[in-house]
Amino acid sequence: MPELRRDPVAGRWVIIASERTRRPMDFVVETPRLRGREACPFCPGREDATPPEVLRFGETEGQGWTLRVVPNRFPALLPEEETESSGEGVYDRMSGTGIHEVIVETPDHEARVGDLTVEAVADVLRAYRERLLALRKDPRLEYGLVFKNHGAAAGASLEHPHSQLIALPIVPEMVQAELAGAMRYHRMKKRCAWCDVVRQERRDGARLVLDVDGFLALSPFAPRVPFETWVLPASHQAAFEDIGSSGSEEIEGLARLLRELMARFERLLGDPPYNWILHTAPFRIAEGEPFHWHIELMPRLTRMAGFEWGTGLFINPTPPEEAARFLRAPEVWARSVTRPDGPEPD
Amino acid sequence: MPELRRDPVAGRWVIIASERTRRPMDFVVETPRLRGREACPFCPGREDATPPEVLRFGETEGQGWTLRVVPNRFPALLPEEETESSGEGVYDRMSGTGIHEVIVETPDHEARVGDLTVEAVADVLRAYRERLLALRKDPRLEYGLVFKNHGAAAGASLEHPHSQLIALPIVPEMVQAELAGAMRYHRMKKRCAWCDVVRQERRDGARLVLDVDGFLALSPFAPRVPFETWVLPASHQAAFEDIGSSGSEEIEGLARLLRELMARFERLLGDPPYNWILHTAPFRIAEGEPFHWHIELMPRLTRMAGFEWGTGLFINPTPPEEAARFLRAPEVWARSVTRPDGPEPD
Repeated sequence: MPELRRDPVAGRWVIIASERTRRPMDFVVETPRLRGREACPFCPGREDATPPEVLRFGETEGQGWTLRVVPNRFPALLPEEETESSGEGVYDRMSGTGIHEVIVETPDHEARVGDLTVEAVADVLRAYRERLLALRKDPRLEYGLVFKNHGAAAGASLEHPHSQLIALPIVPEMVQAELAGAMRYHRMKKRCAWCDVVRQERRDGARLVLDVDGFLALSPFAPRVPFETWVLPASHQAAFEDIGSSGSEEIEGLARLLRELMARFERLLGDPPYNWILHTAPFRIAEGEPFHWHIELMPRLTRMAGFEWGTGLFINPTPPEEAARFLRAPEVWARSVTRPDGPEPD
Repeated sequence: MPELRRDPVAGRWVIIASERTRRPMDFVVETPRLRGREACPFCPGREDATPPEVLRFGETEGQGWTLRVVPNRFPALLPEEETESSGEGVYDRMSGTGIHEVIVETPDHEARVGDLTVEAVADVLRAYRERLLALRKDPRLEYGLVFKNHGAAAGASLEHPHSQLIALPIVPEMVQAELAGAMRYHRMKKRCAWCDVVRQERRDGARLVLDVDGFLALSPFAPRVPFETWVLPASHQAAFEDIGSSGSEEIEGLARLLRELMARFERLLGDPPYNWILHTAPFRIAEGEPFHWHIELMPRLTRMAGFEWGTGLFINPTPPEEAARFLRAPEVWARSVTRPDGPEPD
């Protein structure tokens, strides 16, 4: 059984995923490699390579689907009867109760988000919403983490366009930190911090990339990596799954913006590896706790200087104002001269 | 000038490093690549490829050194007169005041830590100590972050064995979180959390890798990545730089343990890419605030599933008890069967 364990000082929970266990020697020669089309379990006609669907869009028969949601065959967590917690001296454990699903975004193995129709992108967002709404009814689960890994350097092992959803009995560290920061801000100012960010970014304009249909794409003031970009609703909304009902204009507005943003990324940055992570409110957020959902898009353009992830101190060589200008008006940029010869930044 | 910026919600500081600025198009085709021996600025005879030394061990003339500390030619931060802070609506900025140095650990371009003599490893630790002691006298600086990137996958751009030291006007996020956790623990129990970890791990034994000369190497209870290993003193000590004076047995004991640990890593895991990060107390820690320095060794064996870094939720396929058993008694392990065919964990 997978197990959740908590570090007694840092407070972070990790999943020790026994279902994915690899023996030490398995690591010695690992090379990142993407599973290609030949053996793709997500292509039409290979539906039996995945567990049965929990959601499908498109025709109701086995063929003709436009989107499928299936349980992950190698889940990080397992749906068990009850969540069990236990202590062991300074340490805390919890059974690895949870749900791990894969959203197969399109039947097209090669498609990038920028290639999809607005309607197809809207369907991906609708699938996120439907699964979150279904899973938050489960009283054992506290958080639904939706994310997408694109490209081997971003941790994907399959090429076929897909997202993942992990529903957890705990709230992940980063969301806890955001929630604490947002509450601090709200206590002080009686306003939502992200609503203030939206107001200030609209007034300033220097970090704004897109602002249409009630959604913004912007380069955050303190980005961790070059071209980090956030997408968020202009009006306050704590939980993503509370976005307008299926077929609404709200989801289509978001889909239009996301598709345009990703098309720019793919064209201007050469189809970069990336992760996007939906930061949404915990399922059981207390009344009045401020949160404002947003998607954090993290391209993986630079070598991962490991110490940055290990310390929480990020060194970003690209000011967000430059990144935003590039994404707004790419034609003004020409390939610039590379850095002087000598020892490289390390 | 480089600039520090703070995220108004998450609270993390990032360095926008204008001295290392790259224009957007510079990222498009970047491939990790290690600078080899031909153009190595750290090899003997190329001393003029780096700024003048701030510390040298070995013979006092230009040749014959055994270790050098030099300013980084592409510093993330710059030593300026004064640290200036300013607000801008919801945002905070600070001038990027700081020091960025490189510790060239040995004249030998090819050496791994496990190849060095105990005395040479002790010299690396002495260099860390001397530079931290010197820099903590600067009232503008709050923290000295010492780390080592080994291998391109761990963010190194130069092969030649080296560590780095970044002295900062702020305390990095991870150390802040540890400090807060350690204070919470201390308020509740009136004991140092890491001292309790040492006691419990010695009693239990399942996660212990080495325990000699007053230092422990252990697989932490809640490791983020396979084979994450911590090295720490058995007795309480807040700041690394307070370790016994130059030439003391204390530093030699630590060097012996670290050298043995790294030799096992290099032999058993095939010279893996890794980061090690020294977590030490902030320079101006308040009297009575509990901290217990430790080195966190993070091998980079798995694909970086980016969402883990983006969310603070780590999925680790290797239980620390297995990792510790392997590092304690490698002969019992044989190459095990790889996972079943089908969709890979993603």
